[in-house]
Amino acid sequence: MTRDNQNILASFVKSNGFTYFITGLIVFNAILIGLETFDSIYTPYEGLFFWIDIIILLIFLIEVVLEIIVYKKRYFMNGWNIFDFIIIVGSIILYSTPFVSVLRIFRVLRIMRTITAVPSLRRVVTALFMAIPTITSVMLIMAIIFYVYAILGTSFYRDISPDFFGNLHLTFITLFQIFTLESWASGIFRPIFAEAPWSWLYFISFIVVTTFIMINLIVGEIVNNAQKISEGIEGETDEIKEDTTEIKEDTSEIKEMRRELAEIKDLIKSQNMK
Amino acid sequence: MTRDNQNILASFVKSNGFTYFITGLIVFNAILIGLETFDSIYTPYEGLFFWIDIIILLIFLIEVVLEIIVYKKRYFMNGWNIFDFIIIVGSIILYSTPFVSVLRIFRVLRIMRTITAVPSLRRVVTALFMAIPTITSVMLIMAIIFYVYAILGTSFYRDISPDFFGNLHLTFITLFQIFTLESWASGIFRPIFAEAPWSWLYFISFIVVTTFIMINLIVGEIVNNAQKISEGIEGETDEIKEDTTEIKEDTSEIKEMRRELAEIKDLIKSQNMK
Amino acid sequence: MTRDNQNILASFVKSNGFTYFITGLIVFNAILIGLETFDSIYTPYEGLFFWIDIIILLIFLIEVVLEIIVYKKRYFMNGWNIFDFIIIVGSIILYSTPFVSVLRIFRVLRIMRTITAVPSLRRVVTALFMAIPTITSVMLIMAIIFYVYAILGTSFYRDISPDFFGNLHLTFITLFQIFTLESWASGIFRPIFAEAPWSWLYFISFIVVTTFIMINLIVGEIVNNAQKISEGIEGETDEIKEDTTEIKEDTSEIKEMRRELAEIKDLIKSQNMK
Amino acid sequence: MTRDNQNILASFVKSNGFTYFITGLIVFNAILIGLETFDSIYTPYEGLFFWIDIIILLIFLIEVVLEIIVYKKRYFMNGWNIFDFIIIVGSIILYSTPFVSVLRIFRVLRIMRTITAVPSLRRVVTALFMAIPTITSVMLIMAIIFYVYAILGTSFYRDISPDFFGNLHLTFITLFQIFTLESWASGIFRPIFAEAPWSWLYFISFIVVTTFIMINLIVGEIVNNAQKISEGIEGETDEIKEDTTEIKEDTSEIKEMRRELAEIKDLIKSQNMK
Repeated sequence: MTRDNQNILASFVKSNGFTYFITGLIVFNAILIGLETFDSIYTPYEGLFFWIDIIILLIFLIEVVLEIIVYKKRYFMNGWNIFDFIIIVGSIILYSTPFVSVLRIFRVLRIMRTITAVPSLRRVVTALFMAIPTITSVMLIMAIIFYVYAILGTSFYRDISPDFFGNLHLTFITLFQIFTLESWASGIFRPIFAEAPWSWLYFISFIVVTTFIMINLIVGEIVNNAQKISEGIEGETDEIKEDTTEIKEDTSEIKEMRRELAEIKDLIKSQNMK
Repeated sequence: MTRDNQNILASFVKSNGFTYFITGLIVFNAILIGLETFDSIYTPYEGLFFWIDIIILLIFLIEVVLEIIVYKKRYFMNGWNIFDFIIIVGSIILYSTPFVSVLRIFRVLRIMRTITAVPSLRRVVTALFMAIPTITSVMLIMAIIFYVYAILGTSFYRDISPDFFGNLHLTFITLFQIFTLESWASGIFRPIFAEAPWSWLYFISFIVVTTFIMINLIVGEIVNNAQKISEGIEGETDEIKEDTTEIKEDTSEIKEMRRELAEIKDLIKSQNMK
Repeated sequence: MTRDNQNILASFVKSNGFTYFITGLIVFNAILIGLETFDSIYTPYEGLFFWIDIIILLIFLIEVVLEIIVYKKRYFMNGWNIFDFIIIVGSIILYSTPFVSVLRIFRVLRIMRTITAVPSLRRVVTALFMAIPTITSVMLIMAIIFYVYAILGTSFYRDISPDFFGNLHLTFITLFQIFTLESWASGIFRPIFAEAPWSWLYFISFIVVTTFIMINLIVGEIVNNAQKISEGIEGETDEIKEDTTEIKEDTSEIKEMRRELAEIKDLIKSQNMK
Repeated sequence: MTRDNQNILASFVKSNGFTYFITGLIVFNAILIGLETFDSIYTPYEGLFFWIDIIILLIFLIEVVLEIIVYKKRYFMNGWNIFDFIIIVGSIILYSTPFVSVLRIFRVLRIMRTITAVPSLRRVVTALFMAIPTITSVMLIMAIIFYVYAILGTSFYRDISPDFFGNLHLTFITLFQIFTLESWASGIFRPIFAEAPWSWLYFISFIVVTTFIMINLIVGEIVNNAQKISEGIEGETDEIKEDTTEIKEDTSEIKEMRRELAEIKDLIKSQNMK
């Protein structure tokens, strides 16, 4: 492809018209996927829905190919592009395979491309992802606490309550349910409590510890952000402090000068008297 | 209507007496609407309640008409007035129609006029409405996530749990219930989990994602407000910074001056010696 | 009573020993009241418990009388003292009346005197009470919203669900339950939803509105406090700003002075040349 | 032991290799304890699991002994070391006793040593513990409120609802459940409400009071931290204020100087004229 064609293609892909067309298609696709869940609408036009979906998918594929041609390596440096790429290429690869429910998830995730397409939404999601690294340490501690309680719960209550504590996997789900406080007492704790009188220690300590950590996590995030804001102010007051120190040094010479002026005046006066 | 009559009317409508009378009537109307729910009170005096309601409504109508005459176009520039207008005119239009339950809602909404009438309450509600624009982006992302999970939930669990996931409408209500964490496990998840062993991924991911977004929304709102407060301080420190920079420039000449003074002194001394 | 006796009494009532004795008695009384709930402990010593309680109550009465003698009118200017007074005098008045459950509440409330006796706890409770005035406006709006929804709920669902919406009183309790999100769907909404397909609007709008107000209340309280803190800093930066403005005016004369010094030097030089 | 051997031992215990080996062993031990909950894995290799556990425990014991030799008294000044010591020595003491479930808890708590071994996790937990002293006063008030409501609840509802309010111990657990808002109405309040029409006062007041305290606790913690941050800025602005006051004093002499210069100029001029 010549350099000229390249430029024409690049300005086409970067044009507002192209962006709007793709965004519109994503929204149209989202509506279509929603309509398919209504049997009365979907069943009589099943074929139509199928072909429109194929066409939309092909247009998305062409979009991805064009963008890769235009941006080359840089295309894959952007997390949003990688998400688009996986969603679309994944859909195509899975189309003729028997993994129907995975394909269905890929199709529905195409709705998420609305976020990719609208910059203001993209910014909010980026902000959400940026909140993750600051909470990894706390999440790790939560994981350790969940693991400890999962092992204890499984070994203590697997016989009393096999539905909730039958194995490590079930216990993890149950602990998540207790963590959300949903039916922790009425559904899970009370029946066990009837047989194991010390079980309240296990349940109440778990709720107190995990809730305490969650509250501190939220308080911590707010305080961290407040700290960042105040650092801007502190930086400025630091500079002002430095300035005033220097100014003070300068102005301390003013007194010195007055003395010298007095001296000069005396000299001149004595001269005059002569 | 002559200009004089206009002025008399305006001062009447804007008078404290008129405002207090209308506020009193709104409160009286609110109490009346409450009393009507007690059958033992309402049934024997049904006719009386009916006529008092008609009279109150007419007074409110006269109030609206008077205010429109006084304020003219400006009346409709105030959101509170538009609310009043719709509530009262709506009540009158619906009076002889068969939309009884809509009329009932309009009648009860007249209680909300207490907020319109009391300035301190009006300010709080205005503050609440002002918080909405800052959260629209986050709400849009929530809507997209709800939509994606609604489609997935409907297509995955419509056969296992038709009461909760039977169609898109039911699934949206169910997702809202899960979002509030109410019986999400005991009522909705556990029965589905018994048949679909991977369903925990759907439910737990939904709860984690939506709760994470909500927490970040609240943290974000607090931090945004803290930022606004700190901007006042930063503006001031900026000005101080500029001042100190200028002052530093000025005072840097003090040393220069001392040198010059020394020179002058020498000059004078040499003169004296002559 | 002579002035001397007065002083002796005052120094006795204000002494650490007296305070510690009363605090100890309050704690001892609290433990006793707790022990009475254990039938195996209470039944065999019923008489003993009764007489100890009478004695403690009399000591508390003497304490109140002594404090009133010492502090006179000032005693009743302190909210904590009024609380103590009501609790103790109330207990005595109710002792021989048939209002047994009210007396019981008064007796148990004596445990609360621990807060009255320990200054650090008193400070925390004072801080809690001080948070109330800042939220009255929001609470009033909540009350109006509850009232509107209570009337709507009663008139809409009193026949479908008489247990939850049978009358205004029941509906208020039900709305409080929905506000806490407890079984709002599984217990209250779903059975009504089966008969009234539009009821989701009532329930979801109520939850969204009340939760939104609560979140904004909390965010508002945090921001208000942050504002108060920042006002201290802003006051200081204001003062600094004034100072720097004055200093700038002063130092702007430095340039002027250099020019004058140059002039003086020239004058002297020209003199020397003569 | 000679001083030289001491040094060799100290540098060995403090070496990265030793730390990594122990951390790896802790993680390996954690995985092993998890695997034991799967019967299909545990049962055929019960003996193997037993011997590996003994060996790991012995290595941990050697680690503790070595560290005590190296750090001596200082070892027990560190809270984390005390935790390690209790976990490991406790496991060994309990090994041949019949307190199987206590031993099991000690074994599982060894997983917590991951936190002891990873500095970043240790810092988070230290921060969590540091949040505790600031909330003790509030926790004490909560305890008093729980105690008052526990006694009232037990004496009022022990006959109506013996499962929830049968004795002080059961009532405390029930109040904690109500505090978490779990099934407070559907499970606990509604059945009692059917028999005791005033019980809503007890339940709603308890929820309002405890939730109000919790919200204020969280708001308070955020505000406290914001205060600490702002104190840094305030300290700096204080210093700047002092500086500017001094500078202002200095610069106030500038005007004085100009007057003196004018005088000198006049003197020289008069001299020249002579």
